[in-house]
Amino acid sequence: MRPEEAAALLREKDRILLVTHRNPDGDTMGSAAALCSGLRRLGKTAWLYPNPQVIAKLLPFVAPFYAPEDFEPGFIVSVDVATEKMFAEGYAGNVDFAIDHHPSNSRYAPLDCICGDRAACGEIVLEILKGLCGGVTKEEADLLYIALSTDCGCFQYGNTDAAALRHAAELVEAGADNARLNQLFFRKVSAARIQLEGLIYNSMSFYHDGKVVVALVTDEMLRQAHATEDDCDDLAGLAGRAECGEVSITIRDYPGGHSKVSVRSGESFDSCALCARFGGGGHKMAAGCNLPVPPLEAREILLKTIDEVLA
Amino acid sequence: MRPEEAAALLREKDRILLVTHRNPDGDTMGSAAALCSGLRRLGKTAWLYPNPQVIAKLLPFVAPFYAPEDFEPGFIVSVDVATEKMFAEGYAGNVDFAIDHHPSNSRYAPLDCICGDRAACGEIVLEILKGLCGGVTKEEADLLYIALSTDCGCFQYGNTDAAALRHAAELVEAGADNARLNQLFFRKVSAARIQLEGLIYNSMSFYHDGKVVVALVTDEMLRQAHATEDDCDDLAGLAGRAECGEVSITIRDYPGGHSKVSVRSGESFDSCALCARFGGGGHKMAAGCNLPVPPLEAREILLKTIDEVLA
Repeated sequence: MRPEEAAALLREKDRILLVTHRNPDGDTMGSAAALCSGLRRLGKTAWLYPNPQVIAKLLPFVAPFYAPEDFEPGFIVSVDVATEKMFAEGYAGNVDFAIDHHPSNSRYAPLDCICGDRAACGEIVLEILKGLCGGVTKEEADLLYIALSTDCGCFQYGNTDAAALRHAAELVEAGADNARLNQLFFRKVSAARIQLEGLIYNSMSFYHDGKVVVALVTDEMLRQAHATEDDCDDLAGLAGRAECGEVSITIRDYPGGHSKVSVRSGESFDSCALCARFGGGGHKMAAGCNLPVPPLEAREILLKTIDEVLA
Repeated sequence: MRPEEAAALLREKDRILLVTHRNPDGDTMGSAAALCSGLRRLGKTAWLYPNPQVIAKLLPFVAPFYAPEDFEPGFIVSVDVATEKMFAEGYAGNVDFAIDHHPSNSRYAPLDCICGDRAACGEIVLEILKGLCGGVTKEEADLLYIALSTDCGCFQYGNTDAAALRHAAELVEAGADNARLNQLFFRKVSAARIQLEGLIYNSMSFYHDGKVVVALVTDEMLRQAHATEDDCDDLAGLAGRAECGEVSITIRDYPGGHSKVSVRSGESFDSCALCARFGGGGHKMAAGCNLPVPPLEAREILLKTIDEVLA
């Protein structure tokens, strides 16, 4: 159904639980919390599934909506969840209504509002809230700005279309503090992350006239930078910054002397085919695999294979 | 005058030269080139001042509009130039019409269109081109997207308001290839820049519980990274990424064993007052000075002074 119809449906429901996906990002959490806030403005009982994996930066925005343990929902709505595998335990088969922007949504819910052409699920929730409440509050605008901006890399990613920019403008007009939120989610990082990025940048080596870039992320580097897993978000994207690179490979220590490999590429190289040779997989432009050797050896093996592929 | 009036004025003129500012950025070059293109669509002779300082990434977009040596302009228009000091030699006193978004514009031109509330000059040129030609071509949309996005840090900076986002949406609808342009201007950097950033990140030291961050940029680091001046854009911004930091200082080798110091801060610290102690100046949140000692010694001197200021 369309967002206006979703608004009409939700108006008839109460005791609503909003469910987010595993490894939750800004879009699933921000969208669900904004919808929760809008439903409460209509006098409804609405809570957010207390997703335990939420990152520290997001927690203060969503924690006030986390459901108490004894909440018995009457209607379960998933937000930004493409497949049932993406749920935490317990929700597969139990969702009444799915709101999502993934074209690949597996249609697991009896009712759904899937808009596959939206950059972020937050854009769908914005439309629903306009139908439901006639607009959004400043708090909801902040939550939806987090949703939209994080899913399109602060309007840098290729999914940023005119509609996404227009929706962002609407949210800023509704009071979203985009300057502060951009600082928090895009500009500022921990001192440990800065040190770690420095070590990773200086670990990078370039092959095939710079077309192939390999970055290393070792446990020793994490120790040296005093970095924790919280500082390791999207490390595989760093090697992709090199303008000469067509294939970027990030190799990270994996327990037991193994290596976890992430490959990113342009259209001209099949990352998935490379990773498939080592039992991995993924997409043409982003894939991964594990190798049963430490990072430096993994680099040698991968470079030999790339030599063959490019020959 | 307002952009619609500027369009009416320009419709009456011919043999137009568009002039940009020293150390030209995407806004001055992209805005001027887009306006040049629009004027030509009306059958006018229009050229861009061949700004010799333009960065390599911008050149292919603007070079086709560069004036031949023998061009004799009949009407000189400055674009995004706040004061006459910002001109290359020869234009001070000779500009007929100024288009600008700096509220501090010194009103050096007999005619002007100053909209001080715009994030980028490109937004004013977009309005002028709508008045002049009824809209923009795909090429003009690309040029104005470069202008707007570079001046607001791809919509991350605090100057990004709802109007800027809405204008970006208009440009994408008009054909601006935002995905490609974002890659070129924000995402991709040279291998040398990556290496240099790595060295700078690992040079950073933290004081006063991390509130004060100091980064070093030495000639030796540039050599080690094979970096040239082209790789040194906005290095003073790197130290500002630390989330704990309230004052970030970047100290760079300056010929003759001296140091060039850039200070950035939040509202709580007066960067200008610090730099003024050493004969420098600037704004409260961004200032600079030179010290007649090498970077490591400059760091000691600055830290002592900050100890006094914070005490």
